[in-house]
Amino acid sequence: MTDPPKGEWTLIDWIRRRAGGDPTAVPIGPGDDMARVVLGDTDCLITTDTLLEGTHFSLSEATPRQVGYKAMAVSLSDCAAMAAEPVAAVAWTGLPASADMAFAEDLCRGLLEAAERFACPLVGGDVTSWTGRLVIGTSIIARAAGVEPVRRSGARAGDALFVTGRLGGSLLGRHLAFVPRVAEARTLARAVTLHAMIDLSDGLSTDLGHVCRESGVAAEVDAAAVPVSPDAQRLAERDGRSALAHALSDGEDFELLFAVGADDAARLERERPLGETPLTRIGRVVEGRGVTLIEPDGARRELAPRGYEHFRGGGPA
Amino acid sequence: MTDPPKGEWTLIDWIRRRAGGDPTAVPIGPGDDMARVVLGDTDCLITTDTLLEGTHFSLSEATPRQVGYKAMAVSLSDCAAMAAEPVAAVAWTGLPASADMAFAEDLCRGLLEAAERFACPLVGGDVTSWTGRLVIGTSIIARAAGVEPVRRSGARAGDALFVTGRLGGSLLGRHLAFVPRVAEARTLARAVTLHAMIDLSDGLSTDLGHVCRESGVAAEVDAAAVPVSPDAQRLAERDGRSALAHALSDGEDFELLFAVGADDAARLERERPLGETPLTRIGRVVEGRGVTLIEPDGARRELAPRGYEHFRGGGPA
Repeated sequence: MTDPPKGEWTLIDWIRRRAGGDPTAVPIGPGDDMARVVLGDTDCLITTDTLLEGTHFSLSEATPRQVGYKAMAVSLSDCAAMAAEPVAAVAWTGLPASADMAFAEDLCRGLLEAAERFACPLVGGDVTSWTGRLVIGTSIIARAAGVEPVRRSGARAGDALFVTGRLGGSLLGRHLAFVPRVAEARTLARAVTLHAMIDLSDGLSTDLGHVCRESGVAAEVDAAAVPVSPDAQRLAERDGRSALAHALSDGEDFELLFAVGADDAARLERERPLGETPLTRIGRVVEGRGVTLIEPDGARRELAPRGYEHFRGGGPA
Repeated sequence: MTDPPKGEWTLIDWIRRRAGGDPTAVPIGPGDDMARVVLGDTDCLITTDTLLEGTHFSLSEATPRQVGYKAMAVSLSDCAAMAAEPVAAVAWTGLPASADMAFAEDLCRGLLEAAERFACPLVGGDVTSWTGRLVIGTSIIARAAGVEPVRRSGARAGDALFVTGRLGGSLLGRHLAFVPRVAEARTLARAVTLHAMIDLSDGLSTDLGHVCRESGVAAEVDAAAVPVSPDAQRLAERDGRSALAHALSDGEDFELLFAVGADDAARLERERPLGETPLTRIGRVVEGRGVTLIEPDGARRELAPRGYEHFRGGGPA
């Protein structure tokens, strides 16, 4: 499940105080990448995400097929964040009046492309036309299947922090075509003990802030260690912000950020279980609150979460 | 899952030919009220529905709380249609720019009201602000829990057709406050063998058409037997259409329509297992295709499904 912008945490907190149910029936409730629900003798995980035209994609930039693919991929990335195995998906869409049958089929082709690639069949859905703009979303059921779901809340002082891939600039196109790290997450979970994990949907600084908040810890990120994507470089050349700033705060990388103990950190760096997929130690978990960036000269600077805040003006946030 | 208007069946058929996965992993795929998915030694059911402002509600008529309640209730009604027991829900919303924190909380209060009433905790969600109109939806996981899920496809020639409640005119307010027939469905499923069942979201004529289509049978409805709601009467006085026409074709009754064998039909009429909830035999399943209305004088008239057809003009429908 995608995190709301900072201001909307107030709403999520409001819901968390009232929702979630009995912890024996709902071992993981609102506030993680997926919820975990008991079903008789077994349990399952579930996540949901919605993409809104103009916010998560633009139809002048993306084909309907790309939008459909992204709608599935965003929820599959939540499965990756828990190291869970996707089982099935349902999808819904509100089609704008301008959408013809070819548009709708193309949208579904994108959903099905992701469904097939990740062995996560599309088992149902809800299709409606309306007078508004395109909305599309998915809910995905997953299962642990031999790997205990990894939460956001288990990071401990002394842990090392790692990310997969290279960060920043996904707006240049990667946000429509990324490959959710479902397989990589399960490989990592089998290789080491993952204390906490999240997928980078809101940007490294914000998502690391979520892990710290849920775990009751602080984090330090070594600026020189952050793996900067070529897209972040390109974007930096255009807009004058630094490539590092893009890598720290651009959203929709959909890479994994995780915390492991010192021995496991050394083991990951020695054994490289993800092969050619970049796996980078970017910092450490410490006591305290918040996220600090450590510059190459040793200067320290607080990394504030970034993001549009819907309720900044009016709400009690 | 709500059925799309008639023209969009083309799209659903298109998806059904390509989706659904392996039937051993997905015993019930697209095209029923819920999908059924195998999870190791057990399985679960899942449904999803989205409400779109201007199509499924109007904010000049409904409070955010009513909209939230309806968003949950529509998916709970799908659980009823399968005689399944709701287990947990996830919800999403795209909030319009005009929505403040009080609006969002009120929307969530409605979700939580339905969640609590049906012991179906809200376990996660996705909240985003956007420049469009209000969208809100839910996916609900359910389980069979001792009652085999009832499909749309099992109606047989010779079956009797029943509906719960009284039909028509839900637009006058009932569509925002209906009580999903979750408990009634499970009571019925324990009392008799339900051959087929559906919830009335698109209107009796359309939804009975879905059952006939999926079961490969036809149906006859006795006009004099259809239970007409007082709301349908009121609406008829306003717009000049007959109250029966409203009862046959208005959507969003969210009552149950089901088919049972002759012995079970007699038993239901004798034992009235739903107590004070109206339970009415409205017709029968016969060989053939389509739905026929039988007037009190014996005249027969084909009942065509009604509904806005998005792709009527342009698509290959």
